[in-house]
Amino acid sequence: MPISAQRVILPAQTGRALHLNTGEVLRIIAVEAQQVADLALFRWDDLRDGFSPGRTIDYNERITVKRGDVLYSAESVALAEIVEDDVGVHDMLLAPCSEAMFERRGEPAHPSCHANIASAVREFGIEPPRVTATLNVFMDVRVSPGGALTIHPPRSQSGDAFAIRACCELLAALTACSSELTNNGRCKRIAFEHTVAERDRG
Amino acid sequence: MPISAQRVILPAQTGRALHLNTGEVLRIIAVEAQQVADLALFRWDDLRDGFSPGRTIDYNERITVKRGDVLYSAESVALAEIVEDDVGVHDMLLAPCSEAMFERRGEPAHPSCHANIASAVREFGIEPPRVTATLNVFMDVRVSPGGALTIHPPRSQSGDAFAIRACCELLAALTACSSELTNNGRCKRIAFEHTVAERDRG
Repeated sequence: MPISAQRVILPAQTGRALHLNTGEVLRIIAVEAQQVADLALFRWDDLRDGFSPGRTIDYNERITVKRGDVLYSAESVALAEIVEDDVGVHDMLLAPCSEAMFERRGEPAHPSCHANIASAVREFGIEPPRVTATLNVFMDVRVSPGGALTIHPPRSQSGDAFAIRACCELLAALTACSSELTNNGRCKRIAFEHTVAERDRG
Repeated sequence: MPISAQRVILPAQTGRALHLNTGEVLRIIAVEAQQVADLALFRWDDLRDGFSPGRTIDYNERITVKRGDVLYSAESVALAEIVEDDVGVHDMLLAPCSEAMFERRGEPAHPSCHANIASAVREFGIEPPRVTATLNVFMDVRVSPGGALTIHPPRSQSGDAFAIRACCELLAALTACSSELTNNGRCKRIAFEHTVAERDRG
């Protein structure tokens, strides 16, 4: 039987790291509509290795992800499976927003997903330059036939959820995306639940 | 005045690392048609930071690259500018082919771009799990409107070139792609030229 998980609120523009055992579920909930949550994943048994969009795109043969898909590490290790997805539109083409990115836009010292994740995983020995790629949950990035890329407001509605089940022991880091532009003008909170898996599940 | 560069042949399924000073040009030449060359870039002043497809896609607002585009690092540093491009079709969505990738296909112990690059940069202190992303020069990867991805034979003809000019001091690693599937059935050699930039160039 699953142990019911407590819902934790992540205030706007903040992040959190958490440890997941194999089989455990991390569920991200859109408390308010139109808010992106950036998710970083690292292998607990070798924190140098983590989520790789390039490997995930290769093995799924798609630049998008959907329920049932597996997220892979650079070293080709299956990290997590998507087990719930109310929205179906997420991004893994773009790097997490960063202080340097905001500086380029003329907004120095802006909070960022990169800084939030880097700060949350630092105590595990992961240095900021190692935070390179995230799954940008609920982010709507569209690619034109010519390859041009545009960012649209997230399609998530209040209550929508997205969940992964860990395929191996993981360090996850989650942040409520800090970019006003990406989140239809206002950065909002998100919530998550960390559920221990049913022991007898396959 | 530019110092004329010697042409170096990289045999099929091999790689090489080289140091580039700011302003120097690395030119990759298709000795034979339809052969991909994977290119990894690291910042010489902080080898933890290197080429980031996610950052490059973000700043160029395109999943493709063309002449005049800049390749960026995860830390948002401009690494190199594309200064010559006879083909116009390259990939940065896929991670470099790796031993683990071939193993998944039932081809264990197959040579790979990942192993070639990892082996070439190891003496600089970059460990294999740090080789995560490459610009796959001449690789033809197409994305359908629904996001599905297909790999097509490279469009490069014999003599076609692609060159970058270093925006900062770099460690580059180049490999003649080791995947038969990606290179229209046969892995071929590639060539490169490393040219010192004109001193009076802007």
